[in-house]
Amino acid sequence: MESRTAAIVIVGNEVLSGKVEDANSPFLCRELRPLGVSVERILTLPDVVDLIAAEVPPLAARYDWVFSAGGIGPTHDDVTIEGIARGFGVGVVLQEELARLLRDHYGARLTPAHLKMASIPAGAQLVGGPALAFPVVAFRNVYIFPGIPSILRQKFASIRETFRQAPFHLATLEVDLDEGLLAGHLDALLGQFPGLLVGSYPQHPPAGYQVKVTLETKDPAVLAAAEEALRTRLPAGALVGEPRAPLNPPPGRR
Amino acid sequence: MESRTAAIVIVGNEVLSGKVEDANSPFLCRELRPLGVSVERILTLPDVVDLIAAEVPPLAARYDWVFSAGGIGPTHDDVTIEGIARGFGVGVVLQEELARLLRDHYGARLTPAHLKMASIPAGAQLVGGPALAFPVVAFRNVYIFPGIPSILRQKFASIRETFRQAPFHLATLEVDLDEGLLAGHLDALLGQFPGLLVGSYPQHPPAGYQVKVTLETKDPAVLAAAEEALRTRLPAGALVGEPRAPLNPPPGRR
Repeated sequence: MESRTAAIVIVGNEVLSGKVEDANSPFLCRELRPLGVSVERILTLPDVVDLIAAEVPPLAARYDWVFSAGGIGPTHDDVTIEGIARGFGVGVVLQEELARLLRDHYGARLTPAHLKMASIPAGAQLVGGPALAFPVVAFRNVYIFPGIPSILRQKFASIRETFRQAPFHLATLEVDLDEGLLAGHLDALLGQFPGLLVGSYPQHPPAGYQVKVTLETKDPAVLAAAEEALRTRLPAGALVGEPRAPLNPPPGRR
Repeated sequence: MESRTAAIVIVGNEVLSGKVEDANSPFLCRELRPLGVSVERILTLPDVVDLIAAEVPPLAARYDWVFSAGGIGPTHDDVTIEGIARGFGVGVVLQEELARLLRDHYGARLTPAHLKMASIPAGAQLVGGPALAFPVVAFRNVYIFPGIPSILRQKFASIRETFRQAPFHLATLEVDLDEGLLAGHLDALLGQFPGLLVGSYPQHPPAGYQVKVTLETKDPAVLAAAEEALRTRLPAGALVGEPRAPLNPPPGRR
């Protein structure tokens, strides 16, 4: 079971200069994983048209989906639309439905800067349906989100089912063994289950055990077999917060 | 005054799969900005040797410094050293000083997996001095940090002064004006001060004002002039939490 893949592009000088902590890529990673999507890359760029233009099209070619966040407001530093359009060699056009929404919202206060928020790369689609006050702009497989986390979340929620794949199945084991001793066991496990995703995360400060081990795959039978194999391999007492007896105790032992 | 530039590379499946929120790139951004360093890019990659090998050398060529975090422990998913070595076309060698530190620490419990933590790209240097229990490995302009935030912070602190440049000077204005109305004022300001870094951040949810504006430059005289110019341009009452009278009131007033 293959995974569809995704890349996330965060646009914002405020993140790079340490003024704001990016909350959007962690949110998207947490949302996409349970949808069965494998996020393969996150790229944070400054508000520079040419950099966005250079970076987004190769990501769109390499991954199934690209999610961008930030840089789509009315001011000079909002250059994501222009960057994506330039990158794909298309123009920026006024989208009439978005322009109407802005005119309805701002009325007589509408400025040309506001209308920049109705500008899209030529050929882009509006997605997200009637639940949204303002739809999501998607150019081919690039979904263009605003940087304000609460708005990004609302918009993503409206289209999240579009991305659903077969789920990942995850087992987490708390192992009280030094990583240097654990490493050989994990190597052996990977030899037995080559497609398995195995993570090894030392706990610092200590958490009552030394390493969190994650086993992950889209095949639940493989996960069950791999977890059983690792539990069997590890020395007695190494698994914490878990039944220390074998799952199927031999006859004569409880 | 030019800025030295930096890129940050985060290595870790656990970040991309939403299991762990990256705390290292926000930390490095917050540290590097007051040092006068301009972080130009953050890239988060999975634990894959070939991806690290492909991505790090171009970043090292493009930016003054690269800071990597993650992937330098003893297990199968710790592949940053191998990736960087392969990317630069050098081998991985055992560093004797690091090996000695590991032998001292682990004693009879030392495993070959532990010694992986003494492996470095051939030609790499140890930096950070005697304050550190375990030094930082630097290959050319690439500084290789562990992923555990508390350890990364301690290691960065030991070498932070290495990176100090002329500082950025920052002014922050809280503006109670819709971004669509503000945009023209910021465009005019940038016309007057072309090298100025101007950020415009709508507040959502509202914070008692609509937009936070940041002005930033390495030249304090430019900053003072630009801030004065923007204060003068903005309509009366638009600046919040600030003296609304001019900084130098004309004779005859208050």
